[in-house]
Amino acid sequence: MRTTTELRAEILAAARAEFAQHGLAGARIDRIARAAHASKERLYAHFGDKQTLFREVLAADAAEFYRSVTLRPEAVEEFVGGIFDLACREPAHLRMITWAQLEGFALGPPEFEGRPFPDQAMRAIEVAKDAGHVDSAWRPDDLIVLLFAIGLSWAHSPHPDATTDDSGILAHRRAVAVDAARRLIATRP
Amino acid sequence: MRTTTELRAEILAAARAEFAQHGLAGARIDRIARAAHASKERLYAHFGDKQTLFREVLAADAAEFYRSVTLRPEAVEEFVGGIFDLACREPAHLRMITWAQLEGFALGPPEFEGRPFPDQAMRAIEVAKDAGHVDSAWRPDDLIVLLFAIGLSWAHSPHPDATTDDSGILAHRRAVAVDAARRLIATRP
Repeated sequence: MRTTTELRAEILAAARAEFAQHGLAGARIDRIARAAHASKERLYAHFGDKQTLFREVLAADAAEFYRSVTLRPEAVEEFVGGIFDLACREPAHLRMITWAQLEGFALGPPEFEGRPFPDQAMRAIEVAKDAGHVDSAWRPDDLIVLLFAIGLSWAHSPHPDATTDDSGILAHRRAVAVDAARRLIATRP
Repeated sequence: MRTTTELRAEILAAARAEFAQHGLAGARIDRIARAAHASKERLYAHFGDKQTLFREVLAADAAEFYRSVTLRPEAVEEFVGGIFDLACREPAHLRMITWAQLEGFALGPPEFEGRPFPDQAMRAIEVAKDAGHVDSAWRPDDLIVLLFAIGLSWAHSPHPDATTDDSGILAHRRAVAVDAARRLIATRP
């Protein structure tokens, strides 16, 4: 017999896979229940309706996404490298965040070590500016949005070649993104 | 009586609104038919199934999206400004492209004045490099993906404040994106 905790974990794992692939509207509760070896009734008893389950998966995925990237003041460009790696390693997280955005779900500010992620990142940019690693003209909130955009540029691209397993191409794209971040933050002469 | 051309145009307009809002899985053919004052049967007779209709809307939206932004060698940073403006003016196009990407639809290379858009943009970057407007180290394909990412950085952001009508905030974000592009392409000392 599975414990309730085990059952919940299996349902959540099945829901993550289903929602990442098919989105909210396209996901099917009976497929999730089948993959988790649970009845639809037990699933509904634990998680309420499809929207509630989607919201739970979204919160977990978004938290994991933001927990996985750290902005260190002395290596701001590597933050972009980390975002690039994350999108390659866990494309499901970004798919989930994107589905949620299209479906109009509000994403609460993600936490990082007990503090909201944006605060932690904003402070790191301020430190980097004081230390001369980042041009002092930058507003931290502007820069952070751009760093995410650069790290995710290929992940967001609708180009037919955007998805690839070729390690040479991936290494090139990562290096380009990191270099772009370096150009962005460089102190202007 | 509407002509066949008028009927088709009304169905397509209704389908664009429905798909942009709800995506492929969430869209309902009966809502599209009702909005176009047509029967489901006539709709199916003209456009086949939901997937075929989605594909038709996608092709039209993507073509319009790429037709609306021009890369001029002497003003590469304004390409980014144009992309930013377009995403503000026609959020439905980008929503449509994003839904399609999540649903796994391949987007053929968009055309621009009879030539594939990427060729036109790549050539403009080469001219800009030769003229000294863009650092010669850039590979055009890398740079184009980054320019789109920067122009769409707020459109892609899941930040709760990403969507706004405040003209002051929008003007600031546009200026930041254009300036980021300027930093990106600047010749390295």
